[in-house]
Amino acid sequence: MIKVGIVGGTGYTGVELLRLLARHPEVTLHAITSRKEAGQAVADMFPSLRGHVDLAFADPAQAGLENCDLVFFATPNGIAMEQARSLVDAGVRIIDLAADFRIKDVGEWEHWYRMTHVCPELVAEAVYGLPEVNREVIRKARVLANPGCYPTAVQLGFLPLIEAGIVDTGHLIADAKSGVSGAGRKAEVGALFAEASDNFKAYGVPGHRHLPEISQGLSIAAEKKVGLTFVPHLTPMIRGIHATLYARLTDPQADLDLQALFEKRYEGEPFVDVLPLGSHPETRSVRASNLCRIAVHRPQGQDTVVVLSVIDNLVKGAAGQAIHNLNLMFGFEETLGLEGLPVLP
Amino acid sequence: MIKVGIVGGTGYTGVELLRLLARHPEVTLHAITSRKEAGQAVADMFPSLRGHVDLAFADPAQAGLENCDLVFFATPNGIAMEQARSLVDAGVRIIDLAADFRIKDVGEWEHWYRMTHVCPELVAEAVYGLPEVNREVIRKARVLANPGCYPTAVQLGFLPLIEAGIVDTGHLIADAKSGVSGAGRKAEVGALFAEASDNFKAYGVPGHRHLPEISQGLSIAAEKKVGLTFVPHLTPMIRGIHATLYARLTDPQADLDLQALFEKRYEGEPFVDVLPLGSHPETRSVRASNLCRIAVHRPQGQDTVVVLSVIDNLVKGAAGQAIHNLNLMFGFEETLGLEGLPVLP
Amino acid sequence: MIKVGIVGGTGYTGVELLRLLARHPEVTLHAITSRKEAGQAVADMFPSLRGHVDLAFADPAQAGLENCDLVFFATPNGIAMEQARSLVDAGVRIIDLAADFRIKDVGEWEHWYRMTHVCPELVAEAVYGLPEVNREVIRKARVLANPGCYPTAVQLGFLPLIEAGIVDTGHLIADAKSGVSGAGRKAEVGALFAEASDNFKAYGVPGHRHLPEISQGLSIAAEKKVGLTFVPHLTPMIRGIHATLYARLTDPQADLDLQALFEKRYEGEPFVDVLPLGSHPETRSVRASNLCRIAVHRPQGQDTVVVLSVIDNLVKGAAGQAIHNLNLMFGFEETLGLEGLPVLP
Amino acid sequence: MIKVGIVGGTGYTGVELLRLLARHPEVTLHAITSRKEAGQAVADMFPSLRGHVDLAFADPAQAGLENCDLVFFATPNGIAMEQARSLVDAGVRIIDLAADFRIKDVGEWEHWYRMTHVCPELVAEAVYGLPEVNREVIRKARVLANPGCYPTAVQLGFLPLIEAGIVDTGHLIADAKSGVSGAGRKAEVGALFAEASDNFKAYGVPGHRHLPEISQGLSIAAEKKVGLTFVPHLTPMIRGIHATLYARLTDPQADLDLQALFEKRYEGEPFVDVLPLGSHPETRSVRASNLCRIAVHRPQGQDTVVVLSVIDNLVKGAAGQAIHNLNLMFGFEETLGLEGLPVLP
Repeated sequence: MIKVGIVGGTGYTGVELLRLLARHPEVTLHAITSRKEAGQAVADMFPSLRGHVDLAFADPAQAGLENCDLVFFATPNGIAMEQARSLVDAGVRIIDLAADFRIKDVGEWEHWYRMTHVCPELVAEAVYGLPEVNREVIRKARVLANPGCYPTAVQLGFLPLIEAGIVDTGHLIADAKSGVSGAGRKAEVGALFAEASDNFKAYGVPGHRHLPEISQGLSIAAEKKVGLTFVPHLTPMIRGIHATLYARLTDPQADLDLQALFEKRYEGEPFVDVLPLGSHPETRSVRASNLCRIAVHRPQGQDTVVVLSVIDNLVKGAAGQAIHNLNLMFGFEETLGLEGLPVLP
Repeated sequence: MIKVGIVGGTGYTGVELLRLLARHPEVTLHAITSRKEAGQAVADMFPSLRGHVDLAFADPAQAGLENCDLVFFATPNGIAMEQARSLVDAGVRIIDLAADFRIKDVGEWEHWYRMTHVCPELVAEAVYGLPEVNREVIRKARVLANPGCYPTAVQLGFLPLIEAGIVDTGHLIADAKSGVSGAGRKAEVGALFAEASDNFKAYGVPGHRHLPEISQGLSIAAEKKVGLTFVPHLTPMIRGIHATLYARLTDPQADLDLQALFEKRYEGEPFVDVLPLGSHPETRSVRASNLCRIAVHRPQGQDTVVVLSVIDNLVKGAAGQAIHNLNLMFGFEETLGLEGLPVLP
Repeated sequence: MIKVGIVGGTGYTGVELLRLLARHPEVTLHAITSRKEAGQAVADMFPSLRGHVDLAFADPAQAGLENCDLVFFATPNGIAMEQARSLVDAGVRIIDLAADFRIKDVGEWEHWYRMTHVCPELVAEAVYGLPEVNREVIRKARVLANPGCYPTAVQLGFLPLIEAGIVDTGHLIADAKSGVSGAGRKAEVGALFAEASDNFKAYGVPGHRHLPEISQGLSIAAEKKVGLTFVPHLTPMIRGIHATLYARLTDPQADLDLQALFEKRYEGEPFVDVLPLGSHPETRSVRASNLCRIAVHRPQGQDTVVVLSVIDNLVKGAAGQAIHNLNLMFGFEETLGLEGLPVLP
Repeated sequence: MIKVGIVGGTGYTGVELLRLLARHPEVTLHAITSRKEAGQAVADMFPSLRGHVDLAFADPAQAGLENCDLVFFATPNGIAMEQARSLVDAGVRIIDLAADFRIKDVGEWEHWYRMTHVCPELVAEAVYGLPEVNREVIRKARVLANPGCYPTAVQLGFLPLIEAGIVDTGHLIADAKSGVSGAGRKAEVGALFAEASDNFKAYGVPGHRHLPEISQGLSIAAEKKVGLTFVPHLTPMIRGIHATLYARLTDPQADLDLQALFEKRYEGEPFVDVLPLGSHPETRSVRASNLCRIAVHRPQGQDTVVVLSVIDNLVKGAAGQAIHNLNLMFGFEETLGLEGLPVLP
């Protein structure tokens, strides 16, 4: 049984962490902080938690986070880097669900996130928490950078192709679609129901913050700098990311079994499901679960491979993957607390 | 550990039963039948179940249902009544999620459901499975009639008022709104996305089949025939029922504490949550869970009481309540298999 | 051809006015003001207007509104009352789409809207712009109070019953459901897609600002103070209001033809459509149009009458009705600029 | 004033034609046929048309279509080809909104549509009705093949790049997303609200019928056979197509002004709107209108161009484009009957 704290639990990542942790048999929820909502019962803000979460939001200063075994940061970018050092020094392990520790190149991070990094030495130490890539180092991490939602879906889809060295890594294309919860629980006109419903649009085409994170991961796999065009879109659903990935085979004449390649790559992975040949995964088939479902196609037998990859952005793309990492870090069964089936319909 | 069968598992009630039963520690899923889909893997039809449900749909004749401890009927109306007798005679207990055993007055049932009842003697024996009313008799039921979705939300909202004898039971009004999954997984134009989305409408105002079921339950509580106006509506969401109930106080001058009345009525009930004074329950606060959340209002202190009652139509309004009944019938902890928190957002 | 100005055009009422006025053959759009957005092209904020509306938002002080024949206020409550006097003195006629001039009892207005009214003398003069009731006085109005969205749907549904004196006006019930655009184009968490989608809830049950407006209108028709329980709900669609109205017949034995009563009441009305007996109007059947469609039911022949009334909250419930009033005030054909058919699907 | 008939008006294309034609000043609606619904008033099926369309569905045999100046086929594929010959011989001009006359290579058509073409000689004569490409020949067409929805959005987005000869036409990628009305008004489980809502998926990745149509159009522009990967997706909205297009510049060093290229290509086009540099068109910005809005991007200045193209699939992708073609064929103002502004929100 470990003691866990959450910094900043008033967003969708926070409530999803609470939904899952409330049922985790090895976790005691010690504190959840919010400067703004200090004193308010968590269940008053999120009535879905009534009867399951008795905590009130605590002021960060009084929360006693240094007594936790693990602290999640479910905060905006730039918060975790300010508090990480003192917690780590106090022997607390950290999982940051924001982006502070994801990009190894601090200069690039500062360029995309438009702030100065105050804790670069922990960036160097931090482990990127994609278990399907970094399982072993995750186990020992003190500072864990939980991957972004798009980066999770996109990397898991591209990795088998890139690791096998069979596609042109200079011209990868990721056309990704996200539900609106990806925009967070912030009062913004663009995310209003009357704006986002019955509507579809791309955004951030000139450049989105998840681009360097995806590029970094794929470049490590490719062992060279990849070229990536990444176009995110907003689609009128609450949860879910669908990544449609395009890569060109370097040797179209080669005798390739893409289906076998993907199945082998993810054999034994508890949270990646390679669908049968010819499948089209639906986002709802992973709704509220920690799964990534993937299908690989080679339309008309031509030289362009199409990979379809779906996750729930709040689970495998955030809170669920964070708990997967917690399980690895503390030696629990990997699926603990993540056994709930997808909710369909 | 009990052996369970499901007859007719290709609808939303079926997949929801499977989602919940797959995680129930005292249940082994023995068979799921579908004449039409016999041979098909269940997880091929419902990809959300991949990795959790290995069964294929079985032909009813070969399913060996008589070897089960319990059989759920997740079938259209009129099927359970044909198969119940032989299963009961074989010592199998039955939970019918359709309407075959809900209405005690067989003539009235035949009027509303437009068919001849072939098993009236089991109607007499059947127990109406609303645990908050019939908990003790449910424990011994051989044939259990699982309540309809609207009747669950409406009865739970009205019962405290009616049992207390403080409202005019001759003129009750239930204005109820349902998500589209309530229409089932049937190919019908009216339930198409392009018809039901961004749209709101009433239906069945001249008379809906759930009217006699609600009236029966409320009349038992009132110990006399109630008068009820029931107007169901279709609202563009997948899951959820919101019942807005109106009743007139017979003595507006009386010193009444409606909030205390409701809290007392449902004290200790694991699946009914009376919200604090002044609340407005949201359907999403119970999404994917077996809860009913209720708030009671007396606007402007006048003589009309307004009760707001929300459930997930597929859980508390169908599969979840059926499992609650299973737990009662087999002496398990009432909440077993139903501990998952609501999914919000 | 008249010159028209709009004060405060950055909300949904504003963009809907622009959509309709851009095609009105007798209207020249002179200015649209927004202090905050002054200088920005209207079509930059609302790309749907590109190519049809060339104006930029103007600073109110420089807009020259006093040169207009008519000024619409598409502002929050409390703005029109501050500017009305000087415009009226300059000979400009006014249509306020907010609530400043709707309630004749200034004290009651101040109670519900929580501000002091600065222009009570124009309240006395103002005409309530429900053409189906006040057509003739509207023609001469200098200050027109455009009705609220709920009040439009509810009053049109109840009026035939109340005017005929056949229902108990002491216990009327209006259960109303609105699309989310009714909450306006304001950045508020509750109206976010991820909050309002796949969800249904009541709100304002203890008291909603449209209650006194509806009561006022119905009381005038009843020639005595009515008793009304009004419960608004939020439903996950963009546009549309569905009002479900309940009234008890005072003489259930009387020989009544409710269908004929409604058809006769709205005979010749260009924007009220009484549906055939047994109908259930859908909100989408009036989407983007100025129509109100109504059906009347008497379930099971009992003493409770159920009326179903649907409008598009942004058209008949706001901008469209305002243009209908403009047409009356300036002697144009009533349907001018409002001929577009509903958009379905 | 011309006399127009519609064959098969019970689908979404049919009701949209009726919505638009009812306001077209030069068109008299002579007949609308449906074998199955013969005798039923059109407005009973589509209440949105009440008061605007008085016709009943007619039996095709009695409809007198040969007396029309123009007949629209809003039918499933394979119907128009059976009736076209006799109508054309009777001097009636035809616009087919289905696919019967779109593909010049009859063998390829038969491969993709899995039927034998019974009227290949009219295929040869038929004009492909994309006005931005074929305006002049459309004017004289007897048989007009109205483009598919995806092909309209995709071709308009790619054409400026291909005509300018600046991209690799061997490896074009079109990632397209459609609202659910694109699946038609057919009772199919996959298009149910409870299936398609809060969900996103690709479909037809191995091959979709619009692929050869798009390839044909782009190959004509390229003056050689293009290579195209086309991935359609279903997105939970009623109307709208968003095409995200990817093409690689053949000479990345060249001095290119893509924005100017697009603006010049569509200069003067009444229904194509090239958005300012850096824009992201939303589908709702064209909802219910005949517009195509386009933005062109070159992310990070690399060699991949991204074009975003949005239309309303039922208007510019079907009924609206058909009326545009009608206007061209009969010498009317191109925008006649298509002046309505997009409906937003």
